[in-house]
Amino acid sequence: MKPHERLAADLVAEMAAVNDLIRERMASRHAPRIPEVTAHLVEAGGKRLRPMLTLASAKLCGYDGPYHVHLAATVEFIHTATLLHDDVVDESERRRGRPTANLLWDNKSSVLVGDYLFARSFQLMTETGNLRVLRILSDAAATIAEGEVLQLTAAQDLSTTEDIYLQVVRGKTAALFSAATEVGGVIAGRPEEDVRALFDYGDALGIAFQIVDDLLDYWGGDATGKNVGDDFRERKLTLPLIKAFAKADDAEKAFWKRVIEKGDQREGDLEEALRLLERHGALEETRQEALAWAERAKTAMQKLPSSGLRDLLIELSDYVVSRVN
Amino acid sequence: MKPHERLAADLVAEMAAVNDLIRERMASRHAPRIPEVTAHLVEAGGKRLRPMLTLASAKLCGYDGPYHVHLAATVEFIHTATLLHDDVVDESERRRGRPTANLLWDNKSSVLVGDYLFARSFQLMTETGNLRVLRILSDAAATIAEGEVLQLTAAQDLSTTEDIYLQVVRGKTAALFSAATEVGGVIAGRPEEDVRALFDYGDALGIAFQIVDDLLDYWGGDATGKNVGDDFRERKLTLPLIKAFAKADDAEKAFWKRVIEKGDQREGDLEEALRLLERHGALEETRQEALAWAERAKTAMQKLPSSGLRDLLIELSDYVVSRVN
Repeated sequence: MKPHERLAADLVAEMAAVNDLIRERMASRHAPRIPEVTAHLVEAGGKRLRPMLTLASAKLCGYDGPYHVHLAATVEFIHTATLLHDDVVDESERRRGRPTANLLWDNKSSVLVGDYLFARSFQLMTETGNLRVLRILSDAAATIAEGEVLQLTAAQDLSTTEDIYLQVVRGKTAALFSAATEVGGVIAGRPEEDVRALFDYGDALGIAFQIVDDLLDYWGGDATGKNVGDDFRERKLTLPLIKAFAKADDAEKAFWKRVIEKGDQREGDLEEALRLLERHGALEETRQEALAWAERAKTAMQKLPSSGLRDLLIELSDYVVSRVN
Repeated sequence: MKPHERLAADLVAEMAAVNDLIRERMASRHAPRIPEVTAHLVEAGGKRLRPMLTLASAKLCGYDGPYHVHLAATVEFIHTATLLHDDVVDESERRRGRPTANLLWDNKSSVLVGDYLFARSFQLMTETGNLRVLRILSDAAATIAEGEVLQLTAAQDLSTTEDIYLQVVRGKTAALFSAATEVGGVIAGRPEEDVRALFDYGDALGIAFQIVDDLLDYWGGDATGKNVGDDFRERKLTLPLIKAFAKADDAEKAFWKRVIEKGDQREGDLEEALRLLERHGALEETRQEALAWAERAKTAMQKLPSSGLRDLLIELSDYVVSRVN
């Protein structure tokens, strides 16, 4: 079994409680469109990685109260809300192998149901009565939105640096991972150094996760179902492209300007882009960065007391980069 | 001076603090698009009615701490976020006499900046450390989104009842009004009956406000700058239309089905709609309901101890319906 499957097996009772809570809270007495849209996404069988991170963090910290379930549902609602809005922003047509909500219903429903889930997530976290987790999760929500706006304005901009890329990645992915793990330690009342280690683990894991995702967009060819070149066609400045552009000669710079800045993409351009990424070792360098972040996640988690759950989370960081290792 | 202008004069120091806080919190180190979009809307000179309701409620309850400013900014951020998303959902082109953000930038920016402001509003309310106001405001945010979805699915649906209309109105308008006034009493630590009266005032004021807005869409002709017939063209089921349809004979029902359900609108249809509204007294009945809600707002506010601010809020409820009185 893969680490996330073993995690799911270990947390089967808690995840059942999380799923019950999600189903209860996505209901709406007055607007049946809300549970329809939410169920389409929630029941599509995502891996539920983020809520599992919260449950596992709380449990390995010895938490025995009821609120890790609320926090896990909170994290999943925030994630689902951002997916609904992302698909509107990116005009996506498929998600988790199914047509997107914006395609099946409309953009309006996706925007408003996303707002509803955001509000529901704040209700859920408020029920914990823990002001520090409220601060962590509302900060994460702001960082996520900020990262998405930054990604929007950085798209098509070849002056995007690796620093900006990292900010975008922290926003769109790592902020929710690190909040998910950090609140587990906070709700359990652990000392600061453990809370910090949990944050660092989630942060590094999220960054590794997103770099792998961006790498596979050019690497592809595996069983992940990703289409090679989606980011290229959408002119997104991801790490492989930023690295290749930094080493580009004048002719190559002209190529990147045409296809990314001007968006004038022709037959054979993706293949040319892949050749340039290969020539400058951009894919291999990106791969190495993903591995380094996975290593940082491990190191952070090793600071916590040894336990079966802790070791599973350590294995999970290897698993996240296994598609490129 | 009109009541809301006297309110602004009375609260000038606090409103300056609210505006400073709004400007501080709409900043983003990484994504300059965020303050650009937000400023476009925030600086366009709305009446700031909602934050003034919070400040006035807290003050008339004798509150002397700093957090009514945070709560007022929270309420304005939630309002601004919903306006950004509403304009995307309604594909609006003008707001407060200026082109909308979705037109000047794009839908993507409006969706994501709206999300950012929602998250910012939750950060702000968390800073108060008061769990009850967190509950009230996150409940309001959920009710708002639910009302918007309900409005979306009720549009073009002639079976929409007055009850459903009231739910939509509570969601899209009254929920934030009543939360704005209620949190003022809660933060001031007032007894339950005062908090309840403040809630009832905001609820009734918001409902009166929205009914007037919906009435003016058919009534028009005043200096409010509203275009007669916008809701008709968008096939929205507002109170005048619901009342007229309830009394329609078969030929009239066929008319409403064609123009609202099928959306087949021709030259002269708006004039015919206005004739039918007039014939069945739908505009007058709607007007009477607005006045009755304004009266309920007054009655609720009169339960609070007499003060200059209280009397101003009582006058405000008359002012809200003065455009149809």
